[in-house]
Amino acid sequence: MFFASDNWAGAHPSVAANLSRHAAGFMSAYGSSDLDRQVERTFCDVFEREVAVFFVGTGTAANALSMTMLARPGGVFFAHRDAHMIADEGGAVEYLSGGGRLAPVDGPLGRMTPQALEAGIARYPAAFVHSGQPAAVSITQASEIGTLYGTADIEAIAAVAARNGVALHMDGARFANALVALGITAAEMTWKRGVDIVSFGGTKNGCWCAEAVVVMNPGDPGRAGQFPFIRKRAAQLFSKSRFVAAQFEAYFRDGLWLETARRSNAMAQRLAAHVRASAKARLAWEPQANEVFPVLKRDVAEKLKAAGAVFYPWHPPREIAGTVAGDEILVRLVTSFATAPDEVDRFGELLA
Amino acid sequence: MFFASDNWAGAHPSVAANLSRHAAGFMSAYGSSDLDRQVERTFCDVFEREVAVFFVGTGTAANALSMTMLARPGGVFFAHRDAHMIADEGGAVEYLSGGGRLAPVDGPLGRMTPQALEAGIARYPAAFVHSGQPAAVSITQASEIGTLYGTADIEAIAAVAARNGVALHMDGARFANALVALGITAAEMTWKRGVDIVSFGGTKNGCWCAEAVVVMNPGDPGRAGQFPFIRKRAAQLFSKSRFVAAQFEAYFRDGLWLETARRSNAMAQRLAAHVRASAKARLAWEPQANEVFPVLKRDVAEKLKAAGAVFYPWHPPREIAGTVAGDEILVRLVTSFATAPDEVDRFGELLA
Amino acid sequence: MFFASDNWAGAHPSVAANLSRHAAGFMSAYGSSDLDRQVERTFCDVFEREVAVFFVGTGTAANALSMTMLARPGGVFFAHRDAHMIADEGGAVEYLSGGGRLAPVDGPLGRMTPQALEAGIARYPAAFVHSGQPAAVSITQASEIGTLYGTADIEAIAAVAARNGVALHMDGARFANALVALGITAAEMTWKRGVDIVSFGGTKNGCWCAEAVVVMNPGDPGRAGQFPFIRKRAAQLFSKSRFVAAQFEAYFRDGLWLETARRSNAMAQRLAAHVRASAKARLAWEPQANEVFPVLKRDVAEKLKAAGAVFYPWHPPREIAGTVAGDEILVRLVTSFATAPDEVDRFGELLA
Amino acid sequence: MFFASDNWAGAHPSVAANLSRHAAGFMSAYGSSDLDRQVERTFCDVFEREVAVFFVGTGTAANALSMTMLARPGGVFFAHRDAHMIADEGGAVEYLSGGGRLAPVDGPLGRMTPQALEAGIARYPAAFVHSGQPAAVSITQASEIGTLYGTADIEAIAAVAARNGVALHMDGARFANALVALGITAAEMTWKRGVDIVSFGGTKNGCWCAEAVVVMNPGDPGRAGQFPFIRKRAAQLFSKSRFVAAQFEAYFRDGLWLETARRSNAMAQRLAAHVRASAKARLAWEPQANEVFPVLKRDVAEKLKAAGAVFYPWHPPREIAGTVAGDEILVRLVTSFATAPDEVDRFGELLA
Repeated sequence: MFFASDNWAGAHPSVAANLSRHAAGFMSAYGSSDLDRQVERTFCDVFEREVAVFFVGTGTAANALSMTMLARPGGVFFAHRDAHMIADEGGAVEYLSGGGRLAPVDGPLGRMTPQALEAGIARYPAAFVHSGQPAAVSITQASEIGTLYGTADIEAIAAVAARNGVALHMDGARFANALVALGITAAEMTWKRGVDIVSFGGTKNGCWCAEAVVVMNPGDPGRAGQFPFIRKRAAQLFSKSRFVAAQFEAYFRDGLWLETARRSNAMAQRLAAHVRASAKARLAWEPQANEVFPVLKRDVAEKLKAAGAVFYPWHPPREIAGTVAGDEILVRLVTSFATAPDEVDRFGELLA
Repeated sequence: MFFASDNWAGAHPSVAANLSRHAAGFMSAYGSSDLDRQVERTFCDVFEREVAVFFVGTGTAANALSMTMLARPGGVFFAHRDAHMIADEGGAVEYLSGGGRLAPVDGPLGRMTPQALEAGIARYPAAFVHSGQPAAVSITQASEIGTLYGTADIEAIAAVAARNGVALHMDGARFANALVALGITAAEMTWKRGVDIVSFGGTKNGCWCAEAVVVMNPGDPGRAGQFPFIRKRAAQLFSKSRFVAAQFEAYFRDGLWLETARRSNAMAQRLAAHVRASAKARLAWEPQANEVFPVLKRDVAEKLKAAGAVFYPWHPPREIAGTVAGDEILVRLVTSFATAPDEVDRFGELLA
Repeated sequence: MFFASDNWAGAHPSVAANLSRHAAGFMSAYGSSDLDRQVERTFCDVFEREVAVFFVGTGTAANALSMTMLARPGGVFFAHRDAHMIADEGGAVEYLSGGGRLAPVDGPLGRMTPQALEAGIARYPAAFVHSGQPAAVSITQASEIGTLYGTADIEAIAAVAARNGVALHMDGARFANALVALGITAAEMTWKRGVDIVSFGGTKNGCWCAEAVVVMNPGDPGRAGQFPFIRKRAAQLFSKSRFVAAQFEAYFRDGLWLETARRSNAMAQRLAAHVRASAKARLAWEPQANEVFPVLKRDVAEKLKAAGAVFYPWHPPREIAGTVAGDEILVRLVTSFATAPDEVDRFGELLA
Repeated sequence: MFFASDNWAGAHPSVAANLSRHAAGFMSAYGSSDLDRQVERTFCDVFEREVAVFFVGTGTAANALSMTMLARPGGVFFAHRDAHMIADEGGAVEYLSGGGRLAPVDGPLGRMTPQALEAGIARYPAAFVHSGQPAAVSITQASEIGTLYGTADIEAIAAVAARNGVALHMDGARFANALVALGITAAEMTWKRGVDIVSFGGTKNGCWCAEAVVVMNPGDPGRAGQFPFIRKRAAQLFSKSRFVAAQFEAYFRDGLWLETARRSNAMAQRLAAHVRASAKARLAWEPQANEVFPVLKRDVAEKLKAAGAVFYPWHPPREIAGTVAGDEILVRLVTSFATAPDEVDRFGELLA
């Protein structure tokens, strides 16, 4: 019953097999092999347009180097107050971007509102040098707490970003989970809504370390054109880049990535059903991707742990904090491609 | 006949197999798993002392974050003028260290001399704020051009570093190749000679991405104690860290790393023997690890390429530049664990 | 009627005269002259202890380089949410500290509470690498909105900082105004309460560019010992440093600095009296130093401006925002050593 | 007999008087006053074109922020190996530019040659991400050792820079000394020859702290357009900016700056004449601006010092190192607007 995080899972068997398949033989290094080229083409197919694709080693690298590409002197990056960039990346954005600032934007259940974004940007008026200047907006899809921006939400945020002259980035550490939940295409979730750059994550969904920065406008000399230097300088250019490519090759083949995301989301819904059916727990909000957040009595949580369930407590978002009683605890349950229905049901039985 | 670089090779079968072996199941993330712990213990065994071990994704990361750990305001890092840090890391050291400077130190055949180091450091006198201040010394073992520092050489350099109050780092991207060539232990090549920190590379010798920063004094709060934050902030903390650990587990098991290094070095000697036997080529200097640098007539080089040999030209080091005639070219041949004797001999035949 | 800012004033005649007095003759450069040494001694007298003193050119430099001196990898600096560092320094702290983060701390009327600080620090638990780590606390005395920390307040905040292992910095851009308002000594307001480092500002109180970083523990090798390099590297070491020293010499001579601060504060009280007496305005809070914040009807504000009064609107702090009506505006009136009683009274007449 | 440096002099009486003249009264802050505007116009007149002008506090700031404006990821700045940026700015360029590298370029007597520059840039080929990329070229006029680039020299260097797609910066810490020595206009020495950006120094020539970054193309959004943020973020925006403006106002009025430079240069020639006439000394090279470099017997140097002469030894440039005997020493004598002919002649008598 491992629900601690989707990164506690290993690699999907198809990904592991493909790594082995490409282990032998010689290939040119640093992203210049035929396999790298071919996987880049697959990204263009997935996004239904020419895109520039840059493999990096971690989701934090994808996010922080995306922001670095968009940095300005005295620049400010706007993200939801609970975004991974703000809460869990150890200052990587600030450091790698040369001292950019992360400005937290409010919004219920892990998603910024266009109004809050507009108000946040307004604190950095363009002509007022003392405050600094807006540099980029980043949204997380699926969010840190398993909620989703709808396409209209993304469009509204993109409009605010565009009006203020800054680019829109999507932290897609759980891109596939969001995609299959919304039932739309990658194009529909990104550039057709005004997203300029995506941190495209494969790691949480069956790879072991496959992340990519995807730039929708590959011809931009100041962004995509500079990214090879940005990546190299940040020590994120892998010599045996083939192995990242190999992961993505398996990931995309025959729609594996969508299948693993669907399974992961389905396990979350199965967990949610158990919570709904239980008298000992309630859902803090409806899960939309692969994360479930029940509120439990503290003693119930302890019993679950004692029975072998692994999960983390979660700091209640401001808007629900008042609803968690003193003897209760909000916890996070994360499912993945590797989550077994049996384990979910065992957890359900313990809750019943 | 792939002699372009040791990073054109893939992964050793044992490493690939171990990755697959650990692909299934759940493990705690971010370097906290039992497998991580166990591999860290192996490092202590290898170095015959308590060490602090930090996995990172690339050799450039290992080097640049080692320098970052040793950085000082206005700090200067001393490395051989042809060191990888200076020539091939895209400014990563300067960038990640917050603006440190790399001061090139002279010395024949890829190795700095203690005298040149002393003279280099003397240009940054401690009390003269205008010049900046020394921060660290880094040597590369084996060097960029396949030569080695002997233990007495390392000791002499360590003495200069110590006298000037700075730490000594070893870029060990080809650590194993050096070790087996010298026939000594890791302890004898490092801390027993005064080395404080090692970039320990597995990638070029059979892993696909396994690098570690090894700090000899694990209790130092300002160095090892800060490194977890340095690594996280630089986006080099892998969530599924188990896969780096798995590579190293296989790498060290039953001395695989020494065996692959020996094989790689032996292939270099076999290549060298062909060069020595050829009338069309000569060795620019004696190979000591897994790189061979012959001087060829330009037309011979072209014929070798046409026959399928893959290798890069090399800019002649200052001290031999005068010996390369206008119709000649210096080339670099790199061998690896994956180099087949047949291929070496085929190359030899072409040279004969 | 110039109440826009205390930096709209020029230089006090004694400061200007002392600059002229020291304009002739030769002095050794970069802070090494006898005059520099002598003024450093005066600082020790003022603080009643050995201190290390470093002149810099701007208040922003003093703040940002103080934070740089205290920086840690992934480090977080805690300051009141309206602090100058956060609102008005163009990202200098983040940039110069190598990517540190400024975490805003709450508290009414420009002053953080120890409770809010404790809660803020608690979001960055020491052993949790993902969040980063606390690096320093900074309080502003007098605050951005002319309020003061009492000595017990400072002590309570210092206790929180100490308990969490971080240093306490005081942004003293208006140090003298606070000092004379509290009627205590520099020692009593700083190190005797647990303050470790002060940005000591002279510019707003009669100098034209005289700021100093004052480190209470001059023997600390990692802080004061590194500061000469931190300052030089940040381009803040003035060659003709004598001119900063000359300003401070005049500033401290015969208590000029306390006299100008008293005058400035007295003018603020005189302004406040006019506001209290007026039916057209009210004080948003009691002024404690040299800033007065009245709430006016918008049309009254316009009439004052039309009559020649110069001042800026001010964004109402959260805790009083609800008390400012739609047809009202909060404005900031700043007095300085150069404010004439006549001008204050003319403003008062317009308000009557 | 103060020949240690031109920054040992104080402020010219006219500059000091103008500071006093503008000490009283209120002016809007942060560079927005009428006086600031007016002095910016004077710069346009001096350069005979529209330029963007940004005051900063030190020459190091002017240089380092110019480089920051031109920085690229993995970027390399090319300057003469003895340039101030490389030898005497404490790592400010590397730090403030976010980790740029300074690549030393060779050339006799303090001036890079176009050939050496071309060769230096060639080591960073555009498409080779591993080496980084060229970002800017900087020449120093007058050079660190008092020599000058002729207009044809500047044009040849500008051609190399342009061909390689990078901007040309001129470190004009001694701009006026060079200008009057060449007998040309500021336009002829800069943009008419291809210079894009100038660090325009007033400090060494009679101001006490007046430096400006002058951008020849004021409409460039990525450079001049970003500089206000670059300057603010680097803590170089002075609140009482009027005092820098006041220095420049006096500096330019009635050609004071040219007069002080002429006097300074004339004193250097007078010193040189004494050296030429002496049997105890010889000129290491012909002085062209306000620095004289004699070679003296060591005992002569000691006697001069004992008699009250103040000067520094100088590390012999590579190309003359062999001509300085073991019992000799190369020293630097710097003159300034404040150097008295009497003092020069007294020095001459001691040499005779």
